[in-house]
Formats: sequence, structure tokens, C-alpha cells
Amino acid sequence: MIPDDRLGVPGADQAEFSPEALLDEARAAIRPLDDSAVRAATQRQAQMTKPAGSLGVLEAVSVQLAGLAGECPPPMPEPAAVAIFAADHGVHAQGVTPWPQEVTGQMVANFVAGGAVVNAFAAQAGADVVVVDVGVASDLGQVPGLLLRKIARGTGDFTIGPAMSRAQAMAAIAVGIQVARDLVAAGNMCLLTGDMGIANTTASAALICAFTGRDPGDVTGRGTGVDDATLARKVEVVRRGLALHEVDSSDPLGVLAAVGGFEHAALAGFIIAAAGLRVPVILDGVIAGAAALAACALAPGAECALVAGHRSVEPGHTICMQHLGIRPLVDLDLRLGEGTGALLALPIVQSAARALREVATFDAAGVTEKA
Amino acid sequence: MIPDDRLGVPGADQAEFSPEALLDEARAAIRPLDDSAVRAATQRQAQMTKPAGSLGVLEAVSVQLAGLAGECPPPMPEPAAVAIFAADHGVHAQGVTPWPQEVTGQMVANFVAGGAVVNAFAAQAGADVVVVDVGVASDLGQVPGLLLRKIARGTGDFTIGPAMSRAQAMAAIAVGIQVARDLVAAGNMCLLTGDMGIANTTASAALICAFTGRDPGDVTGRGTGVDDATLARKVEVVRRGLALHEVDSSDPLGVLAAVGGFEHAALAGFIIAAAGLRVPVILDGVIAGAAALAACALAPGAECALVAGHRSVEPGHTICMQHLGIRPLVDLDLRLGEGTGALLALPIVQSAARALREVATFDAAGVTEKA
Repeated sequence: MIPDDRLGVPGADQAEFSPEALLDEARAAIRPLDDSAVRAATQRQAQMTKPAGSLGVLEAVSVQLAGLAGECPPPMPEPAAVAIFAADHGVHAQGVTPWPQEVTGQMVANFVAGGAVVNAFAAQAGADVVVVDVGVASDLGQVPGLLLRKIARGTGDFTIGPAMSRAQAMAAIAVGIQVARDLVAAGNMCLLTGDMGIANTTASAALICAFTGRDPGDVTGRGTGVDDATLARKVEVVRRGLALHEVDSSDPLGVLAAVGGFEHAALAGFIIAAAGLRVPVILDGVIAGAAALAACALAPGAECALVAGHRSVEPGHTICMQHLGIRPLVDLDLRLGEGTGALLALPIVQSAARALREVATFDAAGVTEKA
Repeated sequence: MIPDDRLGVPGADQAEFSPEALLDEARAAIRPLDDSAVRAATQRQAQMTKPAGSLGVLEAVSVQLAGLAGECPPPMPEPAAVAIFAADHGVHAQGVTPWPQEVTGQMVANFVAGGAVVNAFAAQAGADVVVVDVGVASDLGQVPGLLLRKIARGTGDFTIGPAMSRAQAMAAIAVGIQVARDLVAAGNMCLLTGDMGIANTTASAALICAFTGRDPGDVTGRGTGVDDATLARKVEVVRRGLALHEVDSSDPLGVLAAVGGFEHAALAGFIIAAAGLRVPVILDGVIAGAAALAACALAPGAECALVAGHRSVEPGHTICMQHLGIRPLVDLDLRLGEGTGALLALPIVQSAARALREVATFDAAGVTEKA
């Protein structure tokens, strides 16, 4: 276990690179959508050679992209990269899943070797994959393609004590901020969230309850497909965790530390940094949704960068999306995680941007408008 | 107007290339999904490094692709091409849309010039675009990228007489068959339907009523976004057309001829040929849905090749999808046509195939299965 005062974040001991300073910097960069770009995009949608409104949700996406970039048309959201934040969860000990904890590390190895679904979908979408060990229980060693940013070997069991210390949660947030910055610095114009962590739907349910005030019975789902008995146990575990910590949604760092995961905290930082960098971030499923709630609580205004990639079958995910006021682009009963749902949405987001950039207007194409 | 005995179909006057012979040939090639490939794909989905069932609808798509190709894993559905069948409609005279008829030809010119949304989406998806004049009222002349297969300058007004003669409908079917054959011969492994024709949602509604027995009031929608008065007129026009022709769904060619469009008939042929060639065909919206009903009535078994690209906001489209028993992959309130909804679904279909081809099994990746 890395002691709290040396959290594995480069420069964590230097005041100017403290996790808190990184977060403050990322937060301070967030701006609302640019009004004039939003207006220009809305106007252009009305002039394009198609019936007004006929591109449905893609029109709203294109307007958001323009507002986020501050220019119309917006730059193409490519190249794109998915960052998979992997971590383990102490609450695994409560029997919330039939999958052994060692699967987290094994799947990280699978991601790095290119053998997982996220790799296939990323190859199809032309996106890069970055894998970040932010708290896996096992040690994976130096592997090409794996970023070693382990804060600890998994969180604590939140039914017994806090999942993380506040300093650990902050360090994980900083990891996410740095990964986002590095990916954007490398030229990526769109970021996608990915995650891996056996038992992380349990931690996600707890976070969603904490941030939305909803009951664990409404929020908790079957994750990878648990049976009725395990689902009932998950609900009870979430309830006990919330009762133990008396979480307060006005203290988002405290909520993350109490019942969250290292990947949730890292994803929150990743989202906040993307918003500050004015780059769209496509959310995957329920883990990303829970992290987005934390991100928007930590950094109000981060919503401007969010694109909901897909609707997970987890009930808590729909509650997240409603709370955030965003509509998932893909709705195909996926419940895999890894970033797979976000990757399926990427071509849709790119198509929305491309339409705004390339489609002729009625005037330019010599097409008659309706009477 | 081209006389019925010279329908613009190459070789239409030669018995061996008669439209009827082409249709018979295409129909005869249709086979059910291959059982052993379906079994192999289903088994492989259970062995891939992911929780069973966690890819949702994509698992069913991958199994269908394997069964259609007769091999597991199936070939990648790429390259892909969208064929836009364009035609005009005599029923336009009944005031069912505020768009002037000349827009059909103007939009065909826009497609060929690359300025429409379908061009932007095709570029994003890496698909080719082929534009087919199968019955546009205006003359477009020889333009690179446009296939001149005009059967007539638009259909007749179906509230007064039949939209087409049976021979014209059959000739349009043959055009669709030939376009599909040519695209597959050129190496395409996936076909997408596209369409253009002012007033074609009215003809689509009539076809859907005829094939499903549903009432025009349930089926007819706002198309490009017509007002309440125009919608009421559309419903009444569809009702009058159906009453005039006493359509019989057991005579699909008769239904197409009575109330359909040239693009519907061509799309039906296109779908039937794809099924016979064992190539998936991704349907766009309500025009494609209506054509798919005709295709499956003309050639039972053609369902095996159908992938529902997206759910249009037209109420008749959902009725089509229910009737065909297929679930749309994209559901984003689009109502544009052209093939845009099918193109948004293409990367999803490709991702489903790629996962089956590339994802490691638990054994191969050394990942522990759940307890």
C-alpha cells in the first residue's frame, strides 16, 4: 500500500502539482457552452438540405460540440481515445458478485494484449485504447500500453470503513486529470470513458444513491448478471454502506472516499479535465454515470462536455442520465463496461459533427425549400 | 414515359433476362440461416471474455451474420455501400406535403455532388454511395455517379388509378436486384438501403396498411414534418387509395403496383437479392420498412438478411418493425431518410462482427470464469 503522503502521483509532494491544485486548475478552466457558436450551429442546422429537425438527437449533439469548441462548425471529434481506469473494490468481500477479484487484473492483461471487446470496438471505431491501473489488487508489472498509477491495492470494504481516504480519492482524481491532459496533448479531440473492476457496479450504486437521493432498491442492478439472492445482498450492502457513512452529497470528495472506487474518482477527474479542455467526453455505462455525478458535483458546469454514449441495463444508469439531463445515443441492452458502449456511440458523435461541417445549405445546393 | 414493353431494364425484352426471371432467380437463392454457423456463433459468444449476454442486441446480430454467411466467425460486413433509389409520386398532387416535387431531382443532384447528409454519414462510415434514378419526374441527364434506371417520370396518383402497372412494378424490382448484384459483385459485403422521393411517406403508409392490415390513422405520420391539416389529409388520401384498389396482401406485386412507389419496388428487389446473395442488408427508415414488407411477401425467407438500422419517428415504421420481428439498432428521432439511419447503424453491425472475430476466449486469455 502506498502511504497517503506519497500517492504515486508525479509531483504529489510539490505544492504546485498537488492533486488539489490540479483539480482547481481543471475546474477553473470550465466555461459554459459558447453562445455565439451555439446560435451559429442552430442556424446552420436550419439551412442544411434536410427538413428542419430531421436529424433528431444528432442536431442537439452537433450544437453542443460547436458550443463546447466555441466555433461553428466544430472540429471533428477525432482522433479519439478511450481510457480504461481499472481498480478493485474491498466490498467484493461481501459476496456481491460471483466473479473472483483476480479477474480485474486478468482483464487488464487482456486489454493490453488486445483481446477484449473494448479492443475490437476501438479498432472498429479507429480509437486508441489506454489502460490505467489506478488501484488493481494484483500487480501487473511494467507492461507496454499500461499506465501504472496505482493508488492502493483496491479500496477498503465500505460496509466496514471508508473505501478510500480523502487524500487517496483526491490522488485518483488527479490521475484522471493527468490522463485526460496527456491524451488531449497527444492530439485527441474526443475522450471516451472506460472502466474495469470486479464489484464496481456495487460501488456505482452507492455513489448514485448518494448523489441522487434515490433508494438502493431502485438503483442497484444485476451488474454482470447476478442471481436474485446476490442482487438482494447487493442492495443490502449498498444500504449498509450508505447508513454507515452518512454521506453528504454537498461533499462530493467525501462521498467518493466513503463508498466510491479509485476508477470512479479517476473518471471524475478525467471528465472535469475534458470539460476544462473543451473536449467532448463520451460516457460509457453505469460506472461512468456514477463518476459523472461526482464530476458535476465537484465541478459544476462539467455537464457541458458530457455525451451519454449508451444506456446500460443497470437501473441506476437511467437514474444517472435523468439526473444529468442527458440522453444516451445507443440503447442496445449492453452491460459490459470497459468503454464498449461509449465506443459504439463515437461514430454517431462524429457523424453529427461531420454533417454540420459538410452538408450543403439549400441556397448553395439550389434545392427549393418547402412552401 | 417509357412504354411497358421497353422498361429501361437491359435485356427486358429477352426471356432469359426478364424481370420475372431475375426475381425468380433471386428468390430461389434464399436459404434459411445456417444452423451450424448459428450454433457455433452462439457458443463462441458464451466463451468470449465478457459476461454471457453482456453485448445485448449485438450478440444476436453477430449470430445472424454468421448464420447468413454460413460461417463462424462471419466475414466482416465491409466494404459497404448504400444505394439511394429515387422516384416521384403521383399522389403528390393530393397535397400530402409542403415540399414541391422538383425537390426529388434537386436532392438527387445534391447526392451526386456529395452535399447531402447521406454523403457526410457515408464518408464517416466509409461506405460508398450509389444513386439510382428509378422514376424521378425530372430528367437529370448523364451525371457521373448516377445510375439512370428510370421506369417512368413518377408514379400515377393512387387515389385516381394504380400507381404503376404490374409490369412497371416488376421492372423496378428487377432494377433493385441488378443494383444489389452489381454492388456485391464489386466486392461489397454489406448493403444499405437509401431512398429519396417527395411524398414517399404517403405511399409507404399505404403499403404498410396493405401488408399489415393496420388502419391508416395508426400508420400515417408527419413525414418531413407536416402540420395537423396536412397529416389529416394524408390519412384520408391513404384511406381512399386503399379503398379504391381493394389491395390484397397475398398479391404483393399487385399491392406495390396499386399504391407503391418505384423506389419501394426497387428496394424490395434489392432486399431480395441481398438475401439470396447471403449479404446483410441494413434498412433505413419507413420507406425501407414498407419495401421490406413487400420483399418478405414476395420472397418469404428474405427476413434472414434484414438488419433494422434505425427507428424512424414515423408511427408506421414501428409497426413495420414489429411485423418483421426486428429491432432497430439506432433510435434517435431521425426522420430524414436517404439512408442516413442505416449508415449510423453500420459501425454497430461491423462492431458486432468484429467482436465475434477478434475477442479472446476465457481459456485463451487466461481469464477466470465466474464461480
